[in-house]
Amino acid sequence: MTVSYSLEVANARFGGFSKLLFRWKGSIYRLLYKELLVFCGLYAFVSVFYRCMLTSRQQEQFERIALYCDHFTNTNFIPVSFVLGFYVTLAFNRWWGQYTSFPLPDNLMMVVSGNVHGVDERGRLLRRTLMRYANLSSVLILCSISTRVRKRFPSLEHIVDAGFMTAKDLEKLESLNSDFNKYWMPLTWFSNLAAEAREEGRVRNDVALKLLMEELNKYRAKCSLLFHYDWISIPLVYTQVVTVAVYSFFAFCLIGRQFLNPKDNKDHKMGREDHKIDLYVPVFTLLQFFFYVGWLKVGELIINPFGEDDDDFETNQLIDRNIQVSMLAVDDMYQNLPPTVKDKHWA
Amino acid sequence: MTVSYSLEVANARFGGFSKLLFRWKGSIYRLLYKELLVFCGLYAFVSVFYRCMLTSRQQEQFERIALYCDHFTNTNFIPVSFVLGFYVTLAFNRWWGQYTSFPLPDNLMMVVSGNVHGVDERGRLLRRTLMRYANLSSVLILCSISTRVRKRFPSLEHIVDAGFMTAKDLEKLESLNSDFNKYWMPLTWFSNLAAEAREEGRVRNDVALKLLMEELNKYRAKCSLLFHYDWISIPLVYTQVVTVAVYSFFAFCLIGRQFLNPKDNKDHKMGREDHKIDLYVPVFTLLQFFFYVGWLKVGELIINPFGEDDDDFETNQLIDRNIQVSMLAVDDMYQNLPPTVKDKHWA
Amino acid sequence: MTVSYSLEVANARFGGFSKLLFRWKGSIYRLLYKELLVFCGLYAFVSVFYRCMLTSRQQEQFERIALYCDHFTNTNFIPVSFVLGFYVTLAFNRWWGQYTSFPLPDNLMMVVSGNVHGVDERGRLLRRTLMRYANLSSVLILCSISTRVRKRFPSLEHIVDAGFMTAKDLEKLESLNSDFNKYWMPLTWFSNLAAEAREEGRVRNDVALKLLMEELNKYRAKCSLLFHYDWISIPLVYTQVVTVAVYSFFAFCLIGRQFLNPKDNKDHKMGREDHKIDLYVPVFTLLQFFFYVGWLKVGELIINPFGEDDDDFETNQLIDRNIQVSMLAVDDMYQNLPPTVKDKHWA
Amino acid sequence: MTVSYSLEVANARFGGFSKLLFRWKGSIYRLLYKELLVFCGLYAFVSVFYRCMLTSRQQEQFERIALYCDHFTNTNFIPVSFVLGFYVTLAFNRWWGQYTSFPLPDNLMMVVSGNVHGVDERGRLLRRTLMRYANLSSVLILCSISTRVRKRFPSLEHIVDAGFMTAKDLEKLESLNSDFNKYWMPLTWFSNLAAEAREEGRVRNDVALKLLMEELNKYRAKCSLLFHYDWISIPLVYTQVVTVAVYSFFAFCLIGRQFLNPKDNKDHKMGREDHKIDLYVPVFTLLQFFFYVGWLKVGELIINPFGEDDDDFETNQLIDRNIQVSMLAVDDMYQNLPPTVKDKHWA
Amino acid sequence: MTVSYSLEVANARFGGFSKLLFRWKGSIYRLLYKELLVFCGLYAFVSVFYRCMLTSRQQEQFERIALYCDHFTNTNFIPVSFVLGFYVTLAFNRWWGQYTSFPLPDNLMMVVSGNVHGVDERGRLLRRTLMRYANLSSVLILCSISTRVRKRFPSLEHIVDAGFMTAKDLEKLESLNSDFNKYWMPLTWFSNLAAEAREEGRVRNDVALKLLMEELNKYRAKCSLLFHYDWISIPLVYTQVVTVAVYSFFAFCLIGRQFLNPKDNKDHKMGREDHKIDLYVPVFTLLQFFFYVGWLKVGELIINPFGEDDDDFETNQLIDRNIQVSMLAVDDMYQNLPPTVKDKHWA
Repeated sequence: MTVSYSLEVANARFGGFSKLLFRWKGSIYRLLYKELLVFCGLYAFVSVFYRCMLTSRQQEQFERIALYCDHFTNTNFIPVSFVLGFYVTLAFNRWWGQYTSFPLPDNLMMVVSGNVHGVDERGRLLRRTLMRYANLSSVLILCSISTRVRKRFPSLEHIVDAGFMTAKDLEKLESLNSDFNKYWMPLTWFSNLAAEAREEGRVRNDVALKLLMEELNKYRAKCSLLFHYDWISIPLVYTQVVTVAVYSFFAFCLIGRQFLNPKDNKDHKMGREDHKIDLYVPVFTLLQFFFYVGWLKVGELIINPFGEDDDDFETNQLIDRNIQVSMLAVDDMYQNLPPTVKDKHWA
Repeated sequence: MTVSYSLEVANARFGGFSKLLFRWKGSIYRLLYKELLVFCGLYAFVSVFYRCMLTSRQQEQFERIALYCDHFTNTNFIPVSFVLGFYVTLAFNRWWGQYTSFPLPDNLMMVVSGNVHGVDERGRLLRRTLMRYANLSSVLILCSISTRVRKRFPSLEHIVDAGFMTAKDLEKLESLNSDFNKYWMPLTWFSNLAAEAREEGRVRNDVALKLLMEELNKYRAKCSLLFHYDWISIPLVYTQVVTVAVYSFFAFCLIGRQFLNPKDNKDHKMGREDHKIDLYVPVFTLLQFFFYVGWLKVGELIINPFGEDDDDFETNQLIDRNIQVSMLAVDDMYQNLPPTVKDKHWA
Repeated sequence: MTVSYSLEVANARFGGFSKLLFRWKGSIYRLLYKELLVFCGLYAFVSVFYRCMLTSRQQEQFERIALYCDHFTNTNFIPVSFVLGFYVTLAFNRWWGQYTSFPLPDNLMMVVSGNVHGVDERGRLLRRTLMRYANLSSVLILCSISTRVRKRFPSLEHIVDAGFMTAKDLEKLESLNSDFNKYWMPLTWFSNLAAEAREEGRVRNDVALKLLMEELNKYRAKCSLLFHYDWISIPLVYTQVVTVAVYSFFAFCLIGRQFLNPKDNKDHKMGREDHKIDLYVPVFTLLQFFFYVGWLKVGELIINPFGEDDDDFETNQLIDRNIQVSMLAVDDMYQNLPPTVKDKHWA
Repeated sequence: MTVSYSLEVANARFGGFSKLLFRWKGSIYRLLYKELLVFCGLYAFVSVFYRCMLTSRQQEQFERIALYCDHFTNTNFIPVSFVLGFYVTLAFNRWWGQYTSFPLPDNLMMVVSGNVHGVDERGRLLRRTLMRYANLSSVLILCSISTRVRKRFPSLEHIVDAGFMTAKDLEKLESLNSDFNKYWMPLTWFSNLAAEAREEGRVRNDVALKLLMEELNKYRAKCSLLFHYDWISIPLVYTQVVTVAVYSFFAFCLIGRQFLNPKDNKDHKMGREDHKIDLYVPVFTLLQFFFYVGWLKVGELIINPFGEDDDDFETNQLIDRNIQVSMLAVDDMYQNLPPTVKDKHWA
Repeated sequence: MTVSYSLEVANARFGGFSKLLFRWKGSIYRLLYKELLVFCGLYAFVSVFYRCMLTSRQQEQFERIALYCDHFTNTNFIPVSFVLGFYVTLAFNRWWGQYTSFPLPDNLMMVVSGNVHGVDERGRLLRRTLMRYANLSSVLILCSISTRVRKRFPSLEHIVDAGFMTAKDLEKLESLNSDFNKYWMPLTWFSNLAAEAREEGRVRNDVALKLLMEELNKYRAKCSLLFHYDWISIPLVYTQVVTVAVYSFFAFCLIGRQFLNPKDNKDHKMGREDHKIDLYVPVFTLLQFFFYVGWLKVGELIINPFGEDDDDFETNQLIDRNIQVSMLAVDDMYQNLPPTVKDKHWA
C-alpha cells in the first residue's frame, strides 16, 4: 500500500520530520534490517577472528591490511554518494513519470457521458461497453507489468470472471493472432464502436466523435508509455555499477573499520590518531551503512513501483476505482442532474 | 499566508538579499528557533557534565570519545549536504508542480461566457450553475488535501452553507455510492448540463460544445493531479534516510564539538591543533546547525504546501477568488461590454 | 536593458569569453563593487586593529581565534558552493520560465487577422479592439509585477492616456467589484466581443470562433502564470538559508584570513605552514569573495527579472512592440498582400 | 536485445539488486572486461619493470615520479566523478528522449480504423495503404540511424521485398529529386491519399480528415525528432573532454599506484604511510577502474541506443510489431467487434 | 558543420570512445590549442625568470609566494568544477532547446499539400506561395541570429535573389513601418492568403482552414522562440563569474605550480613533500588546464549554436533543405501518388 504521510507533515512544526522516524510500515528500517544484521554478523566475525584467533604476528599483518583498507574507504576514493545521488534522481524521475502515466478513465468518461446519448438500453449498453473496453485495456497492460495485478488475474479467464470482459470478448481477442502484447485491441474496439454509435446517431455529430477519438488516443498513449517504462529499464549496466560501488565499499569496511589494538600501534608505529579508543561497535560505520545502503534501497524501491513493496502503487485498488467511477459516470449519472436552481448568491 | 518578497528584490542592489534577513514572518528563524534552543540546551548539558561532573580520568575517556566523534563529523563522512541538495530539489519540483496544478476556473469561465448564451434567467442560471459545479469540484478536492480548507469546511453542510452547492446537490451527491473520492461528480454534472444546454440551443453549435468539454477535461486533469500529488508522496524511505542523516550528525556533534581541556591535551598528547581555544559557545557548530537543519526545514516546509505554514499556499483565499471571478465573468460581464469605439491611434 | 552578447560569442575563438570580461554594463563588477569595497574596508579595519592596537598578549589571543576561524572557513565546513549551485539553478529555471510566460500577442493577431473579416470601419474596429483588449490585459498584469511598468503607468489613467484603453473601458472596469487582480477582465471582453462578431457574421463560422477562443485561453494562461510566478516566490526560508550561509562565511573570513605574524608563530608554535608570508592584501579571499558573492548576486539578479537591473527584461519595450505589431497585423496588413506571382524557381 | 529486469526487482527484498550482479548478458562485466585486462596487463608490465629491471638508483627515481603521480590521482585533482555525473545524466536524458520519440503507429491506426470506412476491397486497400505508408516512413528513417536496421535492409530493394513498399512506390520515390533524407515522402502520400479518401466519401466528414492530418503530423514529428537526435549529437568536444579525463587519470595510476619498496622508503624518507604493505594486486585501483570506466561505459552504451549492444533498442522487433499491429487494427479488426452484450455488473 | 559521430559509437566496444580522440575536426584540440600554447609560454617565462634571473634571496621570496598560491589552487578553494558543471548543464539545455526550436516547415507542408487544392496554375501558385512565405519567415529570423546566414544574405536583396521573396514582397515589407524585427510579416501574409484561398474554395472547408492556422501558429511560435533565445542570453553576470573563476585559477597556477628547488627547501624548511622532483613540464597542471578550460570551451561552443564553429548548427544547409522539400511536397507531389495496389501481405 502506498504510504501517505502528507497530512502529518502539513505544517513545519518543531520536530517536524522526526515523527516520521517512528513508523515501521513502509519504513527504511523494515527494508534495511536484514542487510544490517548480515553486516553486523560479518563484522563481528572478522572482529573475533582478529582479536582471538590470530597470533601477534598475524595480527600485525592484519592491521597493515586494515589500515590500507581504511585509507581508501575514508577518502572519497570511490564517490559512492555522488553516483547514488545521480542514480536515485534518475530513478525518482522515472518513478513519478510512471505514476503520471497511469491510465485514468476520468476524461474519457466525462466525454462519453456528455456525448453518447440515449437513456434506453442501447444507449446504456453503448456507454458501458465503451468504458469497459477502456478499463479492460488498462487491466491487460497492468497484468503484464504489475506483480500484484498478475496475482489477482493469473489468466485471462480471471479477467472475464471479474467482469472486465465477456466470454465473447475473450474469444475474439484470442482469435486475433499477434506475437505482441494485445492490450491495444479493446481500444480498437472502442474506436470502431464509437464510429458505429455515430452512424446510429447516438453520437450526434462528427465533432463529438472526434473528441471521443482524441481522448481515446490520449488514454492509449498512457497505456503505451506504461508498457515502455516497463520494457526499457534503466540500463542494467548503470544499476550494476552503482550496486558494485556500494557493496564493495562496505566489504572493505568490514576489514578497514576494525578497532585495532592501540597499544601495539605505539610500538610498531602503525597507529592512527583515531585508534586510541576501542568501542567494539563501529558506530559510525553502521551509520554510514544505514545511510548509503538506505539510499541504495530507495533506488531499489522506486525502480519498479509495480511490485508489492509497502510503498508501491496500489494498482489493484486503482483498477477497482476506475471501473467503479467509469460506470457511475456514464450510467447512473447520465442525464441524472440535481435540479438546476438559483444559487445562494443569485442577485 | 504566502510570503511574497519579489518586489523587495526586484533590483539587485547593494546589500541585496540582506534586507530579507530581518523578517520574522515566514522566516527561517521562526521555523528553526525551537530546534536551536533544544540543541543549545543539550550541548550546554553535555558541556557542564564534562567540565564539572567527571573525574579527571573520566574526562580523559570522554575526550577520547569526543575526538573520535569529531573525526567523523568533520570529514564529510556522511555527505549530508549532498543528500539534502538532491532531496530539496526533488521536493521543490513537486512543490511548484502542485502549485501549477491548482485548478483555476479562468479558462473555463472565458469559454462559458462566450459560448453559453441568453441574457434571460435560464441563460444566467446555466452559466452560473456550470461555474458553480467547477468551483465545487475544486473545493471538494481541496477539502481532502488542505488542512486549512478542511478547517473551513469541516463537513459537506458547510460547503452548502457557503453556497458552493445547493441542498439538492448534496442529496444527489450522497445518493451516489462510491468508495472513492467524489470530487469528479460535479464535473460529470457539468458535462451533462453542457450537453443539455446544447440541446436547448443555448450552446449554439457542436464546436462550442466540444470547446467546453475540452476545457472541462483540462480543469479536471488539474484536480486529479492535485489529488495524486497528495496521495503519492515522496517515498517515506527517502525522507527517513535524509532525516536520520541530519539528526544523527548533530547528535554526534553534541559530543564531538565540545571544547576539550587544552592543557590536558598537551600532557597526554591528545590535543588537536584547534583545541587551543575554549569559546564555550561552539559558534561554527551552531552555524552548521542553522544551515543544515535550516535546509532540512526548507524540505519540510515545501513537502506539503497545503498546510498552515506561513509560506503555504493560501487555498482559502484562492477558493474565494475563484468563485468570485467565475460569477463576475459569466454573469455580470456576459454581453456587458464597454462600447466599441475607435482607439486613440486610429488612423 | 537586457544585455545581449550572443553574437559576440557566436564563434568559440581564442580567448573566447575573455572579451566579455571587459564590459561594465550589466557586469558582475557593477553589481558587486560596493559589497567588495565594504568587505575590503572591514578587512583593513580588522587588520590595522590587530597589527597596531593590540598588545602582544591580545595579539596572541586574536591569533588563536583567527586560526580557529580559518580552520572552519577552509574545510568545506559549510558547503556554500553546493547550496549556491542548487539555489541558482532553481532561480534560473524560474527566470527562464518567467520569460517564456511573457504574453506575446503574435499568435492571437495571426488568427484575428485571418478570421475576423471586413475592410470597412466596423471590421477594422472589431479587429483593433480585440487586439487592444489582449494588450491591455498584459499591461494590467505587468503593472502589478514590474517596477518599470509601474513607473511608466503609475495609475490606470496613464494607461488610458497611452491608448491601451478608452475612458469608457476604464469606467466599466471600475464599475466591476472584485477584491482581486482584474487583469482577466479585458480578456472576458475579448471573448464576448468575439461571440458578437460571430453573430454579426464577421467571424464566418463556428470553427473560426473556436480557434479565437483557444488562442485567447493560451494567451490568458500566460498572463496568469506570470502573475503566479510573482505571487509564489521561492520560499523565503530557502533564500534566507543561502544568504546567511554566504554572509556568515565571509564574516568569519574577516578574522580568519588575516595574515598572522609569522615570527610569533614559531615561538609559541601556533603557526600554520602557510603563515610564512604577509601580503597585506588577502588575494585569494578577495577572489573567493568575488566568486561566491558574485554567484549569490546572480541569484539576486534573476530572482525577479521584472526589476530595473541591467539584465532584467525590457518590459516597456516589449509592451510597445506588442501593441505596434498587433495593430500592424490586424489593421494595415489585413488583406493587404503582395501580389501572388510565380516565384523564381517555378517550373 | 533490450535487457529488461524490472520484474526481478519489483520488490525491494533482502539482497535486492545483488541478484542483478550475476548476469552476463548486458552486464558491465561484458562491456568492461577487455579494458580491464589491458589495464591489468599494463600495470603488471610497469610493476615487473620497476621491481626487476631498474637499478636501485633508477628505482628511487621511479619512486619519486610514482609518488608525484599518486599525489595527483589521490586528491580529486581532476574531478572525474563530477564531470562523469553531469555527462551521463545528459546522455541518459537524450537516451530516454530518443526512445519516447520512436514513432509508434498505434494512435494513427486507431484513427484510421475508426474513420476510413468501407468493408469492400477499396476500403481495405485505402486503410492498409495508409498504414503501410506510415510504417514505411519509420523504416526509412531507421535505416539511416540504426545499424541493425541498416543490416536488415541494406538497400531500398530489401524494403520492397519485405513488403513495406511496392515496386511502384520505389519508382516514384526515386523519381523525386532531393539531396536530403526522403523519409517524409510516404507521409506526404499519406496526406494526399487521405484527401482522396475524403473526396471519395470514404472519410465521411471534414472533421475526421482533420483528425487524420493531426495524428499524421504527430507521427511525422517523432520521425523527424529521431532524425535530429541522430544528426545533432552531444558536442564532440564534451565527449572528448570526458574521455581524456578518465583515460589520463588511469594512465597516471599505472605509475602512481605501484607498490613501492617500503624499506627503501624509510631510508631516504620518501615513504608514505600507506606504503607499508605490498599486495602486488592494486585492489582499490582496480575497483576504481571498474567504477569510473564502468560509468564512462554507461555513457558509451546509451549515447547511441540504435546500435547492436545488448542494451540497445530492438528496432527490428519494433518494426515487425508496428506493421503487424497496424494491419490487424485497420484490416482484420475493422468493424469486427465482439457482440455488444450486457456486462456482468449490469443493473 | 555539425560533427556527427553517432554511428561511430553505435556499439559500446573495446576502446569505445577512444577512437573519437583522434579527430581534429570539431575537436577539443582545435578549440583549445591556442590557449594551451599561451599558457605554456607564460609558464615557461615564469619558470625561466625564477630559475635564472632571480637572486637566491629573491628566489626564496618567490618560493614563499608560490607555496602560498599552490596552497589555494590545490584545495578546492574555488570550486571551479562545481560552477562549471552547473553552468555547462544550463548552456546545454538552452543549446538543445534552440535546436528543437528550429522552425521546420514539414508539418505545414503536409497540411498545405493535403488541404489546398487545385492542379491548375492558381492552385500551384497558392501552395507554393504559402510555403515560400513560411520559409521566408525563418530566413528573416535566422538572418538576425546566425552569423552564417547573415554572411549568405547580407541584405534583403540577397534574399530576393535567392528566390525566397519577390521584389514585390520586399517592397511591401519595406512599406510597413515597424521598429522591431519584421520576421512575422510573411506569416501574416500566409494567414491572409489562406483565408483568401478558403474564399476561393481552394481550401474546401472551415475545418481545414483552422488546421492551416494552427500549424501556422506552431511554426510562428518556433520562430519567435528562436528569436528570444537569441535576445535573452544566460545573464552576462553568470558567464563572467564562471570565466573569472577559471581564468584566475590558472593565473595563480602559473606561479603556484612551478617546480621549486628541492635542495633549498630542505635548508629553510619550506619544501613540501611533493617538491622532491623537478619535471620542468607541469604535466598535471597541463592536464588540469586541458580539462577545466576544455570544459569552459564546451560552454563557449554551445552558448551560441548559430555561429561558425565546427559544431554549430548548419543553418544554411537547413534553409536549403527546407525550401526544397517544401516545394517538392506541395508542388511535385501534390496528388502525385504511386498507384494504390494491394500490398505483399494482402490476404
